[in-house]
Amino acid sequence: MTSFEVRAIGWVSSDLKELDLAPRQADEGAPEAWLVFEPEMSEGLKNLKSGDHVLVLTWLNRARRDSLRVHPRGDASRPLEGVFSTRSPHRPNPIGLHPVEVTATEGLRLRVRHLEALDGTPIIDLKPILDAEVSRR
Amino acid sequence: MTSFEVRAIGWVSSDLKELDLAPRQADEGAPEAWLVFEPEMSEGLKNLKSGDHVLVLTWLNRARRDSLRVHPRGDASRPLEGVFSTRSPHRPNPIGLHPVEVTATEGLRLRVRHLEALDGTPIIDLKPILDAEVSRR
Repeated sequence: MTSFEVRAIGWVSSDLKELDLAPRQADEGAPEAWLVFEPEMSEGLKNLKSGDHVLVLTWLNRARRDSLRVHPRGDASRPLEGVFSTRSPHRPNPIGLHPVEVTATEGLRLRVRHLEALDGTPIIDLKPILDAEVSRR
Repeated sequence: MTSFEVRAIGWVSSDLKELDLAPRQADEGAPEAWLVFEPEMSEGLKNLKSGDHVLVLTWLNRARRDSLRVHPRGDASRPLEGVFSTRSPHRPNPIGLHPVEVTATEGLRLRVRHLEALDGTPIIDLKPILDAEVSRR
Protein backbone atom coordinates (compact mmCIF):
# COMPACT_ATOMS: atom_id res chain seq x y z
CA MET A 1 0.00 0.00 0.00
CA THR A 2 1.38 3.41 -0.94
CA SER A 3 2.23 5.58 2.04
CA PHE A 4 3.49 9.06 2.83
CA GLU A 5 5.22 10.70 5.77
CA VAL A 6 3.08 13.10 7.78
CA ARG A 7 5.00 15.26 10.26
CA ALA A 8 3.92 16.75 13.58
CA ILE A 9 4.00 20.55 13.16
CA GLY A 10 3.00 21.03 16.80
CA TRP A 11 1.21 19.56 19.82
CA VAL A 12 -1.98 20.06 21.79
CA SER A 13 -1.51 21.30 25.36
CA SER A 14 -4.74 20.72 27.27
CA ASP A 15 -6.21 19.78 30.63
CA LEU A 16 -7.84 16.82 28.87
CA LYS A 17 -5.45 14.06 29.87
CA GLU A 18 -7.50 10.88 29.66
CA LEU A 19 -9.26 9.26 26.73
CA ASP A 20 -12.27 8.39 28.88
CA LEU A 21 -12.84 12.05 29.70
CA ALA A 22 -12.67 13.36 26.14
CA PRO A 23 -16.02 14.48 24.73
CA ARG A 24 -16.94 12.88 21.41
CA GLN A 25 -17.63 16.21 19.75
CA ALA A 26 -16.37 19.67 20.64
CA ASP A 27 -19.86 20.97 21.41
CA GLU A 28 -20.16 18.40 24.19
CA GLY A 29 -18.03 20.18 26.77
CA ALA A 30 -14.56 20.54 25.27
CA PRO A 31 -12.27 23.00 27.09
CA GLU A 32 -9.92 25.73 25.89
CA ALA A 33 -6.45 24.49 24.99
CA TRP A 34 -3.13 25.68 23.60
CA LEU A 35 -1.73 24.69 20.23
CA VAL A 36 2.05 24.71 20.59
CA PHE A 37 3.97 24.76 17.30
CA GLU A 38 7.46 23.63 16.40
CA PRO A 39 9.87 26.58 16.05
CA GLU A 40 10.46 25.88 12.34
CA MET A 41 6.73 26.51 11.67
CA SER A 42 6.94 30.10 12.90
CA GLU A 43 6.69 31.77 9.46
CA GLY A 44 3.56 29.79 8.63
CA LEU A 45 1.70 31.19 11.64
CA LYS A 46 1.90 34.84 10.55
CA ASN A 47 -1.53 36.41 9.93
CA LEU A 48 -3.36 34.16 12.40
CA LYS A 49 -5.13 36.26 15.01
CA SER A 50 -7.65 36.17 17.79
CA GLY A 51 -11.18 35.67 16.47
CA ASP A 52 -10.11 33.53 13.50
CA HIS A 53 -12.02 30.31 12.91
CA VAL A 54 -9.68 27.51 11.91
CA LEU A 55 -9.74 23.78 11.38
CA VAL A 56 -7.10 21.95 13.39
CA LEU A 57 -6.03 18.62 11.88
CA THR A 58 -4.54 16.19 14.37
CA TRP A 59 -3.01 12.72 14.25
CA LEU A 60 -4.94 10.67 16.82
CA ASN A 61 -1.94 8.64 17.88
CA ARG A 62 -3.80 6.57 20.47
CA ALA A 63 -6.30 5.24 17.94
CA ARG A 64 -6.40 1.75 16.44
CA ARG A 65 -5.81 1.70 12.70
CA ASP A 66 -7.25 -1.74 11.90
CA SER A 67 -10.93 -0.93 12.59
CA LEU A 68 -13.12 -0.93 9.48
CA ARG A 69 -16.46 -1.48 11.22
CA VAL A 70 -17.32 0.37 14.41
CA HIS A 71 -20.24 1.06 16.72
CA PRO A 72 -21.26 4.71 16.15
CA ARG A 73 -20.13 6.88 19.07
CA GLY A 74 -18.62 3.76 20.68
CA ASP A 75 -22.15 2.65 21.71
CA ALA A 76 -22.22 -1.18 21.60
CA SER A 77 -26.04 -1.13 21.44
CA ARG A 78 -25.86 0.46 17.99
CA PRO A 79 -25.17 -1.79 14.99
CA LEU A 80 -21.70 -1.86 13.44
CA GLU A 81 -21.18 0.58 10.59
CA GLY A 82 -18.46 1.02 8.02
CA VAL A 83 -15.93 3.35 9.62
CA PHE A 84 -16.02 5.88 6.76
CA SER A 85 -19.62 6.80 7.56
CA THR A 86 -18.64 7.57 11.18
CA ARG A 87 -16.32 10.02 12.92
CA SER A 88 -14.67 7.27 14.98
CA PRO A 89 -11.03 8.05 15.81
CA HIS A 90 -10.25 4.38 15.12
CA ARG A 91 -9.71 4.37 11.35
CA PRO A 92 -6.96 3.53 8.84
CA ASN A 93 -5.54 7.06 8.98
CA PRO A 94 -6.52 8.47 12.39
CA ILE A 95 -6.84 12.13 11.39
CA GLY A 96 -8.93 14.33 13.66
CA LEU A 97 -10.73 17.47 12.40
CA HIS A 98 -11.46 20.14 14.97
CA PRO A 99 -13.13 23.46 14.14
CA VAL A 100 -12.02 25.97 16.76
CA GLU A 101 -11.88 29.69 17.39
CA VAL A 102 -8.55 31.35 18.15
CA THR A 103 -8.81 33.33 21.38
CA ALA A 104 -5.19 34.45 21.79
CA THR A 105 -1.83 34.28 20.02
CA GLU A 106 1.54 34.23 21.75
CA GLY A 107 4.57 33.50 19.57
CA LEU A 108 4.51 29.81 18.73
CA ARG A 109 1.31 29.24 20.73
CA LEU A 110 -2.33 29.71 19.83
CA ARG A 111 -5.07 29.58 22.45
CA VAL A 112 -8.25 27.98 21.05
CA ARG A 113 -11.78 27.40 22.26
CA HIS A 114 -13.57 24.05 22.32
CA LEU A 115 -10.92 21.54 21.38
CA GLU A 116 -11.78 17.93 22.20
CA ALA A 117 -8.27 16.55 21.53
CA LEU A 118 -6.18 15.07 24.34
CA ASP A 119 -3.08 16.68 25.79
CA GLY A 120 -0.05 15.67 23.72
CA THR A 121 -1.96 15.00 20.50
CA PRO A 122 0.20 15.81 17.44
CA ILE A 123 -1.03 18.63 15.18
CA ILE A 124 -0.51 18.03 11.46
CA ASP A 125 -2.21 21.01 9.79
CA LEU A 126 -4.19 24.18 10.37
CA LYS A 127 -6.52 25.68 7.77
CA PRO A 128 -8.82 28.70 7.77
CA ILE A 129 -12.54 27.92 7.63
CA LEU A 130 -13.90 29.42 4.42
CA ASP A 131 -17.14 31.40 4.40
CA ALA A 132 -18.16 29.41 1.33
CA GLU A 133 -18.12 26.21 3.39
CA VAL A 134 -20.79 27.61 5.62
CA SER A 135 -23.00 29.19 2.99
CA ARG A 136 -22.80 26.26 0.61
CA ARG A 137 -24.29 23.73 2.99
CA MET B 1 10.60 16.02 13.87
CA THR B 2 8.12 13.30 14.83
CA SER B 3 6.41 11.69 11.88
CA PHE B 4 3.74 9.11 11.12
CA GLU B 5 2.88 6.93 8.16
CA VAL B 6 -0.28 7.90 6.29
CA ARG B 7 -1.54 5.32 3.79
CA ALA B 8 -3.46 5.75 0.56
CA ILE B 9 -6.86 4.08 1.05
CA GLY B 10 -7.86 4.86 -2.54
CA TRP B 11 -7.39 7.18 -5.49
CA VAL B 12 -9.25 9.90 -7.36
CA SER B 13 -10.30 9.05 -10.90
CA SER B 14 -11.20 12.27 -12.69
CA ASP B 15 -11.09 14.07 -16.03
CA LEU B 16 -9.01 16.75 -14.28
CA LYS B 17 -5.54 15.73 -15.45
CA GLU B 18 -3.50 18.93 -15.24
CA LEU B 19 -2.66 21.15 -12.31
CA ASP B 20 -3.21 24.28 -14.39
CA LEU B 21 -6.79 23.30 -15.09
CA ALA B 22 -7.79 22.50 -11.50
CA PRO B 23 -10.16 25.05 -9.95
CA ARG B 24 -8.98 26.48 -6.63
CA GLN B 25 -12.22 25.66 -4.87
CA ALA B 26 -14.88 23.09 -5.74
CA ASP B 27 -17.55 25.73 -6.37
CA GLU B 28 -15.41 27.15 -9.18
CA GLY B 29 -16.24 24.53 -11.78
CA ALA B 30 -15.08 21.18 -10.37
CA PRO B 31 -16.41 18.12 -12.21
CA GLU B 32 -17.86 14.83 -11.03
CA ALA B 33 -15.26 12.18 -10.28
CA TRP B 34 -14.91 8.65 -8.98
CA LEU B 35 -13.29 7.71 -5.69
CA VAL B 36 -11.74 4.27 -6.18
CA PHE B 37 -10.85 2.44 -2.97
CA GLU B 38 -8.33 -0.28 -2.23
CA PRO B 39 -9.99 -3.71 -1.91
CA GLU B 40 -8.98 -4.04 1.75
CA MET B 41 -11.08 -0.94 2.58
CA SER B 42 -14.30 -2.58 1.44
CA GLU B 43 -15.80 -3.13 4.91
CA GLY B 44 -15.27 0.50 5.81
CA LEU B 45 -17.43 1.68 2.93
CA LYS B 46 -20.63 -0.06 4.10
CA ASN B 47 -23.45 2.37 4.87
CA LEU B 48 -22.27 5.04 2.42
CA LYS B 49 -25.01 5.82 -0.08
CA SER B 50 -26.09 8.23 -2.77
CA GLY B 51 -27.08 11.59 -1.32
CA ASP B 52 -24.57 11.45 1.55
CA HIS B 53 -22.43 14.52 2.13
CA VAL B 54 -18.88 13.55 2.98
CA LEU B 55 -15.47 15.15 3.43
CA VAL B 56 -12.79 13.57 1.28
CA LEU B 57 -9.27 13.95 2.67
CA THR B 58 -6.53 13.68 0.07
CA TRP B 59 -2.74 13.73 0.03
CA LEU B 60 -1.78 16.41 -2.50
CA ASN B 61 1.29 14.57 -3.71
CA ARG B 62 2.30 17.17 -6.29
CA ALA B 63 2.55 19.94 -3.70
CA ARG B 64 5.73 21.47 -2.28
CA ARG B 65 6.18 20.88 1.43
CA ASP B 66 8.71 23.59 2.19
CA SER B 67 6.43 26.63 1.67
CA LEU B 68 5.63 28.52 4.84
CA ARG B 69 4.65 31.83 3.23
CA VAL B 70 2.50 31.90 0.11
CA HIS B 71 0.57 34.31 -2.08
CA PRO B 72 -3.13 33.68 -1.39
CA ARG B 73 -4.75 31.84 -4.31
CA GLY B 74 -1.35 31.81 -6.03
CA ASP B 75 -1.85 35.49 -6.95
CA ALA B 76 1.61 37.15 -6.94
CA SER B 77 -0.02 40.59 -6.65
CA ARG B 78 -1.27 39.69 -3.16
CA PRO B 79 1.16 39.93 -0.24
CA LEU B 80 2.74 36.78 1.19
CA GLU B 81 0.84 35.21 4.09
CA GLY B 82 1.67 32.49 6.56
CA VAL B 83 0.56 29.26 4.94
CA PHE B 84 -1.67 28.24 7.84
CA SER B 85 -4.02 31.14 7.21
CA THR B 86 -4.46 30.01 3.60
CA ARG B 87 -5.76 26.93 1.83
CA SER B 88 -2.67 26.63 -0.37
CA PRO B 89 -1.91 23.01 -1.31
CA HIS B 90 1.78 23.83 -0.76
CA ARG B 91 2.18 23.26 3.00
CA PRO B 92 4.18 21.05 5.38
CA ASN B 93 1.55 18.29 5.27
CA PRO B 94 -0.27 18.68 1.95
CA ILE B 95 -3.68 17.40 3.04
CA GLY B 96 -6.65 18.42 0.89
CA LEU B 97 -10.19 18.71 2.29
CA HIS B 98 -13.02 18.31 -0.18
CA PRO B 99 -16.70 18.43 0.80
CA VAL B 100 -18.62 16.42 -1.81
CA GLU B 101 -21.97 14.76 -2.37
CA VAL B 102 -22.08 11.06 -3.19
CA THR B 103 -24.13 10.54 -6.37
CA ALA B 104 -23.64 6.79 -6.89
CA THR B 105 -22.01 3.78 -5.25
CA GLU B 106 -20.62 0.80 -7.12
CA GLY B 107 -18.62 -1.73 -5.07
CA LEU B 108 -15.26 -0.13 -4.30
CA ARG B 109 -16.15 3.04 -6.21
CA LEU B 110 -18.09 6.13 -5.16
CA ARG B 111 -19.21 8.74 -7.67
CA VAL B 112 -19.04 12.24 -6.20
CA ARG B 113 -20.02 15.72 -7.30
CA HIS B 114 -17.73 18.77 -7.39
CA LEU B 115 -14.30 17.38 -6.58
CA GLU B 116 -11.40 19.71 -7.44
CA ALA B 117 -8.67 17.07 -6.95
CA LEU B 118 -6.54 15.88 -9.86
CA ASP B 119 -6.78 12.42 -11.39
CA GLY B 120 -4.52 10.04 -9.46
CA THR B 121 -4.59 11.98 -6.18
CA PRO B 122 -4.30 9.61 -3.18
CA ILE B 123 -7.30 9.49 -0.82
CA ILE B 124 -6.40 9.17 2.87
CA ASP B 125 -9.76 9.44 4.67
CA LEU B 126 -13.48 9.91 4.24
CA LYS B 127 -15.73 11.36 6.96
CA PRO B 128 -19.42 12.17 7.13
CA ILE B 129 -20.26 15.88 7.38
CA LEU B 130 -22.08 16.42 10.68
CA ASP B 131 -25.23 18.54 10.85
CA ALA B 132 -23.72 20.25 13.89
CA GLU B 133 -20.88 21.56 11.74
CA VAL B 134 -23.35 23.47 9.65
CA SER B 135 -25.61 24.78 12.39
CA ARG B 136 -22.74 25.78 14.65
CA ARG B 137 -21.18 28.21 12.20
